[in-house]
Amino acid sequence: MLYPTPIAKLIESYTKLPGIGIKTATRLAFYTIGMEEDVVNEFAKNLLAAKRDLAYCQICGNLAEEETCAICQDQTRDLSTILVVEDSRDVSAMENIQEYHGLYHVLHGLISPMNGVGPDDINLKSLLTRLMDNEVTEVIIATNATADGEATSMYISRVLKPAGIKVTRLARGLAVGSDIEYTDEVTLLRAIENRTEL
Amino acid sequence: MLYPTPIAKLIESYTKLPGIGIKTATRLAFYTIGMEEDVVNEFAKNLLAAKRDLAYCQICGNLAEEETCAICQDQTRDLSTILVVEDSRDVSAMENIQEYHGLYHVLHGLISPMNGVGPDDINLKSLLTRLMDNEVTEVIIATNATADGEATSMYISRVLKPAGIKVTRLARGLAVGSDIEYTDEVTLLRAIENRTEL
Repeated sequence: MLYPTPIAKLIESYTKLPGIGIKTATRLAFYTIGMEEDVVNEFAKNLLAAKRDLAYCQICGNLAEEETCAICQDQTRDLSTILVVEDSRDVSAMENIQEYHGLYHVLHGLISPMNGVGPDDINLKSLLTRLMDNEVTEVIIATNATADGEATSMYISRVLKPAGIKVTRLARGLAVGSDIEYTDEVTLLRAIENRTEL
Repeated sequence: MLYPTPIAKLIESYTKLPGIGIKTATRLAFYTIGMEEDVVNEFAKNLLAAKRDLAYCQICGNLAEEETCAICQDQTRDLSTILVVEDSRDVSAMENIQEYHGLYHVLHGLISPMNGVGPDDINLKSLLTRLMDNEVTEVIIATNATADGEATSMYISRVLKPAGIKVTRLARGLAVGSDIEYTDEVTLLRAIENRTEL
């Protein structure tokens, strides 16, 4: 016997999510049946609403409920700086530290020569357009410290530097709380190169 | 900045699922936004349908799309045996091996003295009712081989034996493919006690 159709279908839907295999999907589906009815209704409603009501900001590519996102609409932000990130979660991580007050640009991916992802496959062209007609003086590249992140970072800096725009990237060094003994060699190398005066 | 409301609400819904914390929920929510619209619509529909269209069989407690489940409705099953399990997933595991052709009884839990779950808190009374007025000659207890499973098994056998019903439980022994060296002592003890003649 297989499961009754309604639960079999729900299991199938759960397996479409990343990192959720058939065993976990089955556990989640059975758990769902045991949940309060209004919680499940709310879940279904939120699924539809998230897909329907969210779009990407036409200026920066960040998640937005309207044509442009809350940050691009905010008149108090510093218009002279754009921080370039891979996705909206990075915007959120950056906003959480409440230190950066400029604008963002969300690439929706990274240049990845190994996976055949080139500059035209990510949201990069619109960054160049943004730089042409406004007062941006610095672009801060905040891509992940991985091979793809580095490749993207190098590409952007090479394109922007000839245009006379200051391009910086996040510092490389020891993560706070980390042990020197267990730090990988490349990180240690960067930490020595970029040492700061006390 | 927090996330826009639609995604924040979806993240909250995902965190209601078991084993899914805020980080995973955020990852799932962002992934959901990137999914095809009809896949998300299907997901929402399946959530509602599973909750709405499924109930527990009024006879055995198994998942059912109607008042009684497919197994209880099946006229070809052996009516003389009832196999007692903790939940519907166990029914499915048992059906998969295509060896057992009798009926089931789903307890929806196990007696757990440590957690204050007594015989009245699980679907046990209806098992006794079922035994009163039909031709059941054997009850096979297939609860997990855990402390709670054993407690439940002992309780059921003590209640049923005086009524003259044969009560058996699944064999304890070496799992197929296991090493004797790494088998725990209790399992090894049961394996010796229940040794079979070749």
